Amino acid sequence: MKPDPDRAVAKQTGPTGSPLLVVGSLALDTIETQSSRREEVLGGAACYASFAASFFAPVRLVGVVGSDFPADHEALLSSRHIDLAGLERVSGRTFRWAGRYAVDFNKRTTLDTQLNVFETFRPKLPPAYADSPFVFLANIDPVLQLEVLGQVRRPRFVACDTMNFWIGGKRAELLRVLERANMVLLNDEEARQLSSKDNLPAAASAIRGMGPGAVVIKRGDAGALFFCEDGVFAVPAFPLEGVVDPTGAGDSFAGGCMGWLARTGDISPVGIRTALVVGSALASFCVEDFSLDRFRSLDETAIRARCAAFAQLVRFEAVSF
Amino acid sequence: MKPDPDRAVAKQTGPTGSPLLVVGSLALDTIETQSSRREEVLGGAACYASFAASFFAPVRLVGVVGSDFPADHEALLSSRHIDLAGLERVSGRTFRWAGRYAVDFNKRTTLDTQLNVFETFRPKLPPAYADSPFVFLANIDPVLQLEVLGQVRRPRFVACDTMNFWIGGKRAELLRVLERANMVLLNDEEARQLSSKDNLPAAASAIRGMGPGAVVIKRGDAGALFFCEDGVFAVPAFPLEGVVDPTGAGDSFAGGCMGWLARTGDISPVGIRTALVVGSALASFCVEDFSLDRFRSLDETAIRARCAAFAQLVRFEAVSF
Repeated sequence: MKPDPDRAVAKQTGPTGSPLLVVGSLALDTIETQSSRREEVLGGAACYASFAASFFAPVRLVGVVGSDFPADHEALLSSRHIDLAGLERVSGRTFRWAGRYAVDFNKRTTLDTQLNVFETFRPKLPPAYADSPFVFLANIDPVLQLEVLGQVRRPRFVACDTMNFWIGGKRAELLRVLERANMVLLNDEEARQLSSKDNLPAAASAIRGMGPGAVVIKRGDAGALFFCEDGVFAVPAFPLEGVVDPTGAGDSFAGGCMGWLARTGDISPVGIRTALVVGSALASFCVEDFSLDRFRSLDETAIRARCAAFAQLVRFEAVSF
Repeated sequence: MKPDPDRAVAKQTGPTGSPLLVVGSLALDTIETQSSRREEVLGGAACYASFAASFFAPVRLVGVVGSDFPADHEALLSSRHIDLAGLERVSGRTFRWAGRYAVDFNKRTTLDTQLNVFETFRPKLPPAYADSPFVFLANIDPVLQLEVLGQVRRPRFVACDTMNFWIGGKRAELLRVLERANMVLLNDEEARQLSSKDNLPAAASAIRGMGPGAVVIKRGDAGALFFCEDGVFAVPAFPLEGVVDPTGAGDSFAGGCMGWLARTGDISPVGIRTALVVGSALASFCVEDFSLDRFRSLDETAIRARCAAFAQLVRFEAVSF
């Protein structure tokens, strides 16, 4: 094969597109599946989201790690041109999470959570990050999400994730985040908890009433539903025989989506649909190996091929009679 | 509004297309949802499937009811030009089922099952049914499914459904049905049980190895996956705010699909994709009311509009970069 001069340049300079600020956790994960186990591998929502986004846009990462965070992990992120100026290194142990997956991967049990240096984390953005036009607030304390938003000038598009713990425990703060978010991504149970509606379209309507014009409800291997003023879009999860570890799939989905939006600048409903397909493609790669391992060997050709396979997955001829 | 002469003709003569034979249960269902309850309403897999199919093709129904089966129910089926020559009426009570749905409708508990006249049912096809080119074997004892197949000469396309009870209890007989089926429709748990594979694409591959070239895995409100030699197709369930009662959704899905195949005669992978969208549209109408009530007022215009909405639901622009 001939070398592709365009790709070589891209490798050296990083992707074009508007900068995407990502804030959230970097973690050392211990994962048990039915067939395998990995100890203290690279993980965390911000890590997965940044890496997935880095295929499309320059990423600025804000987070914290302890003194035990392996230099190799930082080098891996840097190799994708992820800007680590906002990565705080403090003495102490890195955030750790351990979980075990059930046989069909749709259920998982958290075995251990050690916040460690994450417990006292207060995000401080480097001054150069203040102009970030695209912002992804991964699942962290909504108080911290608000602190990040307070340090960004007039972002063009803000997306956030959250979880049951904050919906229950810091609802007022979360509602303030939602007022300022253009898009929220959350799973079906979280959507029901946040909205007090069991029906998903009804839940999405209620959440849109809280601020974000775009609501994305994630449903694991059943894909996701995107609600906005333009209607509903159903994006499937790509059916894979070789699911190895679903950890980080939702964050890779969000990161791929946000990276695509930052690259194209098209935040219309049509543009978000395409971005969600890209996100679903990235999520489908994520689950093919532990940690970020599948991403290490991923290239644009493989991403293009998977996006094309998505088009084939949902294609049907018009029904006329 | 002006009367539509085409529709008036269709109403008088029934739909065109090849005949579809449907065999399975007719039931009196008692349904409890979180907000409502209905007693002894018309139900049963063959009933839902026949009614959904009747919008597209002439349906021949084979089943059994007791002497308590209301004449109104027969009249309703006849009003859709469903051929009831194969409907056996015996003295005794009609099959009864009672169930209760959880708040999100994806879980249900069977409260009561009374086989009644169904217990001794042996399907006897009227001689005129023997030439049926399309056959749908709804979920009944695979021994009875085989007896039906024994009475049909060289059908062009046979589809079957089944359930955990038969997969566990009459596996050998079920495997003989599958050897003769072109398509099987079953839910995700049934697919896993039948194949001993947890992963759905792997389960579908294993089931295709048992005979049917087409495997459709139903996933409730997450839609369905269709596997064949041509690849995978994901059809969503239509997101609805107003879900009233999901009973019969899977049977309406199968019936709508088989009715469409019988109408068009296109049993290619592309043709089956379209048929599954039609089936999903019919299922989405089914859940909007109890029993077959939504179907009573359904017309072709509404079906066309919902199929068009399905196209909009999954539409996205090609990903190019």
